[in-house]
Amino acid sequence: MSPRIDCLQYANWSEKIFRQMREGGLDAVHVTIAYHETFRETVLNIERWNRWFEQYPDLIFQGEWASDIDKARDSGRTAIFFGAQNPSPIEDDIGLVEVLHKLGLRFMQLSYNNQSLLATGCYEAEDPGITRMGRQVIKEMNRVGLVVDMSHSADRSTIEAAEISERPIAITHANLHSWQPALRNKRDDVLRAVVENGGMMGFSLYPHHLRGKSDCTVDDFCAMIATAAERFGAEHFGIGSDLCQDQPDSIVEWMRVGRWSKEIDYGEGSASAPGFPPQPAWFRDNRDFGNIESGLRKTGFSDSEVAGLMGGNWRRFFETNFIPAKPTPDM
Amino acid sequence: MSPRIDCLQYANWSEKIFRQMREGGLDAVHVTIAYHETFRETVLNIERWNRWFEQYPDLIFQGEWASDIDKARDSGRTAIFFGAQNPSPIEDDIGLVEVLHKLGLRFMQLSYNNQSLLATGCYEAEDPGITRMGRQVIKEMNRVGLVVDMSHSADRSTIEAAEISERPIAITHANLHSWQPALRNKRDDVLRAVVENGGMMGFSLYPHHLRGKSDCTVDDFCAMIATAAERFGAEHFGIGSDLCQDQPDSIVEWMRVGRWSKEIDYGEGSASAPGFPPQPAWFRDNRDFGNIESGLRKTGFSDSEVAGLMGGNWRRFFETNFIPAKPTPDM
Repeated sequence: MSPRIDCLQYANWSEKIFRQMREGGLDAVHVTIAYHETFRETVLNIERWNRWFEQYPDLIFQGEWASDIDKARDSGRTAIFFGAQNPSPIEDDIGLVEVLHKLGLRFMQLSYNNQSLLATGCYEAEDPGITRMGRQVIKEMNRVGLVVDMSHSADRSTIEAAEISERPIAITHANLHSWQPALRNKRDDVLRAVVENGGMMGFSLYPHHLRGKSDCTVDDFCAMIATAAERFGAEHFGIGSDLCQDQPDSIVEWMRVGRWSKEIDYGEGSASAPGFPPQPAWFRDNRDFGNIESGLRKTGFSDSEVAGLMGGNWRRFFETNFIPAKPTPDM
Repeated sequence: MSPRIDCLQYANWSEKIFRQMREGGLDAVHVTIAYHETFRETVLNIERWNRWFEQYPDLIFQGEWASDIDKARDSGRTAIFFGAQNPSPIEDDIGLVEVLHKLGLRFMQLSYNNQSLLATGCYEAEDPGITRMGRQVIKEMNRVGLVVDMSHSADRSTIEAAEISERPIAITHANLHSWQPALRNKRDDVLRAVVENGGMMGFSLYPHHLRGKSDCTVDDFCAMIATAAERFGAEHFGIGSDLCQDQPDSIVEWMRVGRWSKEIDYGEGSASAPGFPPQPAWFRDNRDFGNIESGLRKTGFSDSEVAGLMGGNWRRFFETNFIPAKPTPDM
């Protein structure tokens, strides 16, 4: 049986949510451990996760390798894989790429909405592409097995990253721009550059990325997936729900503004609706992954396609991309 | 064949020294990565080691588990295990114990000459024993598999650490105080507390710890080992040479004074001889481990005792003390 994997969540973690992961049959979840955090702050977040791993060993453990997905399944738990939505945790120090990979970081976005030291974010007016440091860091990420994630990056930077990277890159959470023209959703030419180099995209359930937002139907969501599969091949896709369960609205403000501005920025929200939008009724939380699976079946995907989309494709991607490029003699 | 292990070095690392480790037949070396460094500074030192591992993959690699000693032997390399001579890398944050263990730290001294947040150093006038935080940190070190090292700690603190710790502790580098009454060498009652709880001591080749200092003979050194073996059992001992090869004298000043004093402190040296003392002729560097082995044989140790003292005993200690206390279900 194929695993069930969600390739992006940033919830207000609690025992309740870890239990819901089990109810939803999730074998692995990629969780965000940094938005704007420095290295030391990211380590503090890892320490918090370590306490949860110690507190709830029957529900969760830290995932590091694809084989941990099988361990999770075999022991009825969920493997938690770390990712960063911004390169802020490496600061200006390329040596931190390997250190953070050692601590379990498996995805890192090269930019989050804004220009970073490495690449341009999707909200900038200009996108000069991958920077000098960006090229060096992509090479180092390739070497150690830290996956380049371009979910919040601008188009040119994303296409260049896909081409510069010697290993496949990911867009862990976004949808088709042609379906819902949000700034965060991906145009076909961007997606093509990613999949042509072996990359993958996870479909987002964040209402601002959905056609009709909170009112989007599961049928329409699955029809969008069918379109993507037709255009690019179903094997390049999975789920990256972007679930931000139980988070107070102060968190969406932290995500959007961090410490980079004294003025408020509403991102995909607005002054009249600044907070987290309500989830669609058919995807409230981790317990509802079955609704997506049924939707995919109803849309006409084959059993093996459904298995791939629900986690098999991410499993394959984890397998080849989390390990060092050239295993050293002792591995 | 038993491995050859040195359980403490702090050299001015270079390709030359890594090659000498191979010439000396060393399968594993415990290297110091922090004296007074903060967490971030310790991570910078780890980054430097990562570059050496990348540069010299045919000579060295990072050791994490006892099995890496065998890997080293099988591939003709030296496994480098990390240790800290001070708890400064964990600052005031107990969560950093697990983070540093994950990054490969395997030994941590609870104090270095001075009072620390955890314990008292051997140069303090008063030794109030293990502190409140010290008790918590020992428990956490026991949980994750980070070995308590009391080489530079005061007597009462050392005895208490041996008793409080639920796993054996180590004195990675020191000699018998009864043989050479240096402040850093260990009295019998201190050593007894350590070995009675399954702990170990590594014999030091640092001239200030030797009878006759730089003029100490290999015969006298091995006679001291025979005395220790008679009193406490040969299985509790190994080598921890404290080799500081090719270090400029500015480094011994950093070791002694760090940032804690504006005045110079000569430690085991003196105003007239403030620098590193010359090594004895029979132990210049890593190439001379064979001289110790011959000396031990000449002193009358059996083959199996010699094998244990040269590395077999540390191998056994690494095997049981670097892994978490209670392996989680996925291990």
